Amino acid sequence: MTKFARTERIQGLIEGLDRFTASPGNGTTRLTYSPEFRLARDYLREQMEKAGLTVREDAVGNLFGRLEGRNPSLAPILVGSHFDSVPNGGKFDGPAGVIAGIETAFLFQEHGLVPDRSIEFIAMIEEEGARFGGGLLGSRILTGKVDTDSLADLRDDDGISMAQAMREYRLDPARAGEAVLAPGAVYAFLELHIEQGPVLETHGEDVAIVDRIVGLSQLKVTIRGQAGHAGTTPMNARRDALVGAVAVLAELPDLARSIGQDAVLTVGKLEVLPGGANVIPDQVAFTVDIRAPKEEVVRELIAQTRAVVEKANGNGLTSEVELQLFAQPTLLSAEIHAALSRHAERLGLKSRVMVSGAGHDAMIMAGFTPTGLIFVPSRNGISHAPEEWTDYDQLARGIDVVFETVREMAG
Amino acid sequence: MTKFARTERIQGLIEGLDRFTASPGNGTTRLTYSPEFRLARDYLREQMEKAGLTVREDAVGNLFGRLEGRNPSLAPILVGSHFDSVPNGGKFDGPAGVIAGIETAFLFQEHGLVPDRSIEFIAMIEEEGARFGGGLLGSRILTGKVDTDSLADLRDDDGISMAQAMREYRLDPARAGEAVLAPGAVYAFLELHIEQGPVLETHGEDVAIVDRIVGLSQLKVTIRGQAGHAGTTPMNARRDALVGAVAVLAELPDLARSIGQDAVLTVGKLEVLPGGANVIPDQVAFTVDIRAPKEEVVRELIAQTRAVVEKANGNGLTSEVELQLFAQPTLLSAEIHAALSRHAERLGLKSRVMVSGAGHDAMIMAGFTPTGLIFVPSRNGISHAPEEWTDYDQLARGIDVVFETVREMAG
Repeated sequence: MTKFARTERIQGLIEGLDRFTASPGNGTTRLTYSPEFRLARDYLREQMEKAGLTVREDAVGNLFGRLEGRNPSLAPILVGSHFDSVPNGGKFDGPAGVIAGIETAFLFQEHGLVPDRSIEFIAMIEEEGARFGGGLLGSRILTGKVDTDSLADLRDDDGISMAQAMREYRLDPARAGEAVLAPGAVYAFLELHIEQGPVLETHGEDVAIVDRIVGLSQLKVTIRGQAGHAGTTPMNARRDALVGAVAVLAELPDLARSIGQDAVLTVGKLEVLPGGANVIPDQVAFTVDIRAPKEEVVRELIAQTRAVVEKANGNGLTSEVELQLFAQPTLLSAEIHAALSRHAERLGLKSRVMVSGAGHDAMIMAGFTPTGLIFVPSRNGISHAPEEWTDYDQLARGIDVVFETVREMAG
Repeated sequence: MTKFARTERIQGLIEGLDRFTASPGNGTTRLTYSPEFRLARDYLREQMEKAGLTVREDAVGNLFGRLEGRNPSLAPILVGSHFDSVPNGGKFDGPAGVIAGIETAFLFQEHGLVPDRSIEFIAMIEEEGARFGGGLLGSRILTGKVDTDSLADLRDDDGISMAQAMREYRLDPARAGEAVLAPGAVYAFLELHIEQGPVLETHGEDVAIVDRIVGLSQLKVTIRGQAGHAGTTPMNARRDALVGAVAVLAELPDLARSIGQDAVLTVGKLEVLPGGANVIPDQVAFTVDIRAPKEEVVRELIAQTRAVVEKANGNGLTSEVELQLFAQPTLLSAEIHAALSRHAERLGLKSRVMVSGAGHDAMIMAGFTPTGLIFVPSRNGISHAPEEWTDYDQLARGIDVVFETVREMAG
């Protein structure tokens, strides 16, 4: 197959998957278990079968396509990423890695390669946390990091429980626990992802081999006051939850700027209730996403955020801070890192070592099995937006590295 | 009928109407044309008929119950208020005045009174603007203040057009223009409303006779930036729309405090897009509600708000301010004011003259016909909240004043 035809196939797979969005014309919106998620799943299954894989869906909806090795008793290598998206995101965040897996399977098929060790190509659910919160849920379930008995109680913004959404997707929530992988069930995990930052593009490099993922944390802050009529409550008699929230919000970005050390802090989700134009708000809830390469920096920023929120108490306002997610900085497998770097070099690609500022399923998998992560460039560093873009030939170069590395590892 | 039985009937009517809420257990949520609005309409129609009125629904859903006078050629007196609510509001804001009308009709019926001039008791739509924005829509349509041809294009937060909502409610949007009243079609308008503030309660008074309604304005502010991934975009490379919006929001309440003169400014509705916890916001839109007894104060606050928003431009952010509503301070009829005051005194009630800080349908009707407005006390001054409360005997006293005044005016 020519290089050109390969790039065409990769483009076809990315675009084929991207037809399944709830916001056509305004980026990719594919929430876990949504109708478009189901159609995306069907499409991936079809492509996996075309690539000669044996497909199964696990108890929570993670999709596995297996290339059976000559020695089926060996634990398989897992290769892939997630296929959910943020609201109005791009078509590469997650899918680039899922398609990298399927394209790798096509390459094995075309070269007539049967590896010694089996390889499973995977498309995971709910990495973004855009539907049920928290994030990285697919990999956290796989690696036994969450209590699957309480999963069913998670709710989306419309109050729909994960159990209900699973049933509508034709999964039995009572069986969620069956998705947990047994210790040693996976030999290694490999993920390709878009960089979601400007570094590779700025330096004209092809791939980054990630050695570490930042520590990250997500808080939910709630400020409560008293609703009232906008016209009849004097300014000095108000208990306006939004006024209290704004005082907090005004201080937060500076916490990250002051502490430096590549820390970032983001408020991405905010809700004002009851939400009438002429009603004084009685509740404001927002998320705070905190990341830094060093764990102590993340912990310090959490403490500082709590202290700022604390100041909102009084004058008829109360506040609450809930820690929804905390993940330490994660070191990835040095051995796989070396293999990825070696193959990138052998292919004549320009590569660099990088710390990932974004959490990825690789971060969770690394606590379970030796894990490698490779980045391809993001145009203008933009992601989680409709403008998110990676040239298909750049994606193809990243996939070449994955293919060569997996081929070597699978023997 | 005993005083006790009357209070019971009033309570029965208020509670009867309040069964129709989209948020049972969490206040009254009755958006115009919603399923619960339709049921409320059916209930009001039934009660109006029980009170001997001839009921008609106009082309946009305002409900009229007519007590035919001995001289049907005389323009009728209109008595009533609205029956929509804010989200999670109370059961008195609007309904108190609608039920005051129906109770007045019951009193005419019980006393066997047939007035010379007809009286129409009215329940109006969409005063709060909670569904289609802007507010006071029912009375603005009645008095020819809006272009009924463009009404159908108004949209709610779910993108449902008013035309579509009307059709689902079994109204023909093409006929909306038929709801406009002909000049001179109404002799006078009388509205009873809850105070929605603490003044009557604080002074131990029974009713307030309103002589003026504050000027009010509603702006919609939009701040736009660039979405991106929360983990991979350094703090100094962000174009975070929420950070820009917070800088604006932090300054707004102080504008009203500084200018004094009983001005109030409220941000009650705010939306952050795309709304993912790990996505830098690219758009924040919020309302600014501005009120003051003097028009020049309202205009000055609008100008100051525009200037503050203007400062958000630059650093990759853009802003926009839209004037959605502007209403001058409104003087009510001195003659009706005198009549209401006289009857309150004759009934032995403690009353006061008041400026209304809230806009009411009376504000719009006053530009069309001589208009009177009377307030009954609000417990703790709270309204637009589930805790909104007026004792039923206090409501009954206000209704007595309405009844006596209407009886006199109708001859």
